[in-house]
Order: sequence, then C-alpha cells, then structure tokens
Amino acid sequence: MDQQRDTADRFLPRFDAAGLVTAIVTDAETGVLLMVAHMNAEAIERTQATGQAHFWSRSRSALWRKGETSGNGLTLVEMRVDCDQDALLLRVTPAGPACHTGRRSCFYRRVEADGALTFLDDDAQS
Amino acid sequence: MDQQRDTADRFLPRFDAAGLVTAIVTDAETGVLLMVAHMNAEAIERTQATGQAHFWSRSRSALWRKGETSGNGLTLVEMRVDCDQDALLLRVTPAGPACHTGRRSCFYRRVEADGALTFLDDDAQS
Repeated sequence: MDQQRDTADRFLPRFDAAGLVTAIVTDAETGVLLMVAHMNAEAIERTQATGQAHFWSRSRSALWRKGETSGNGLTLVEMRVDCDQDALLLRVTPAGPACHTGRRSCFYRRVEADGALTFLDDDAQS
Repeated sequence: MDQQRDTADRFLPRFDAAGLVTAIVTDAETGVLLMVAHMNAEAIERTQATGQAHFWSRSRSALWRKGETSGNGLTLVEMRVDCDQDALLLRVTPAGPACHTGRRSCFYRRVEADGALTFLDDDAQS
C-alpha cells in the first residue's frame, strides 16, 4: 500500500500500465450501483470540466461521453477516490437507464451457487 | 458488447489478459460502497465455496481472504455480475472496517474541482 496516496489531500490518480483507473458509478440519490467503466486522465478532466461523465472505451480505444448516443447521460454530483487512488466513485444523477440493455443498472443478474444467473427486476437492484 | 454474455443465464466471467475481473464490494444492508478489488477464477470459487470474500492481490500475486490478517472479513450475501460479465458485485456483511486505514469504506475522500481531497466522516460515506 502506498502510504503517501492514502493520506494525501491531493488528487494523484494511480493509473495502470494502460493509463486507466476503474470508475464505479452509483446513483447519488439511491446509492444503487449503476455501472463500472474506465477513465484515463482526459476522461477525468472532461468529466470535471463538463459535469457529465466521460470514460475511456478499451474496446474502441476512444474517449466517450456516456449518453452521447443513447441520450442517457450521467450528471456528476460528486467524485470520490479510494485509499490507493486507483479507483474512483462517481455519484451521479442518471438521465435514464445506465445499462445498454435498457435496465437501470448493469448488475441485473444474481450468480447462483450452481453457476446459473437469475435476472432481477430493476426494483430489486440495490 | 458481447451479446451472448448480456443475455446469458449462465455465469461466464470474462477475465482480462491477467485472468482477472473487477470486484465491487458493497454493504448488503446499507448499500455503501466499501472497496474494489480483483478476482481470478480461484478467488471466485473460494468465495462461493466458503461464503467469505477472497481476492487476487496484483501487488503480491497471491490469493488472499479479506480479513485473514485484520480479522475484518466479508461474509458474502449475494454475488451479481454485470452485462458483459467482466465485473462482479459482492454484497456482503462486513465484520469491521473494510479499509486498511480503519475506515468503513476505502472511498473516504471527495475529489474537489481544484484537485484537493476532502476527507469524509464514515457517516457521510453513502
């Protein structure tokens, strides 16, 4: 554990070899986990500058603003960082479903002991 | 987006090149985000088999059970998987502070617009 990073009062994101940190997105009002994505330095800067969540797409190798095609943007309420500064929490107000499947959250399936997945209703996603 | 994975009713974790998926840990009772870690296939299997959260330490290249040194283990209540099956949500009952700093959550600092970090009380961590 990097002692400097966990007591620091300055934001010093610890990017991985690909220049990314993990970004966890929750609904600021309900606390529900909406999605997980990745951010590079530019995505963080654009999110802070615009108040709209931006991420780095590893599959497309491109910066994207969540909602740029779906319309379901995420307005930033607060950004937090974890102890070793390699993960961010974005507390947001979502304009619509966060998942590309149309669900509120990307975490809509429970993993059962036998490897089956049980689909959950939006209301059960806490 | 992998269409098979987002509609699948079978657990088919999509491990990265290092054999890992992102694991997000929340308090099952309060919904508070506690920590983020990584899991390989063995960590998932051990967590399911024992009901205690296991992770893969990238820095130590070792499987570890959360709490094995601190005593602050995480009892699994429910595991969920996201749409493309490269991230897991572990809803847990924590035996104590999840963060190595003694705080309930690893996300105890707010990132301000000017790059300053503001320390939050445990009660403010939602």
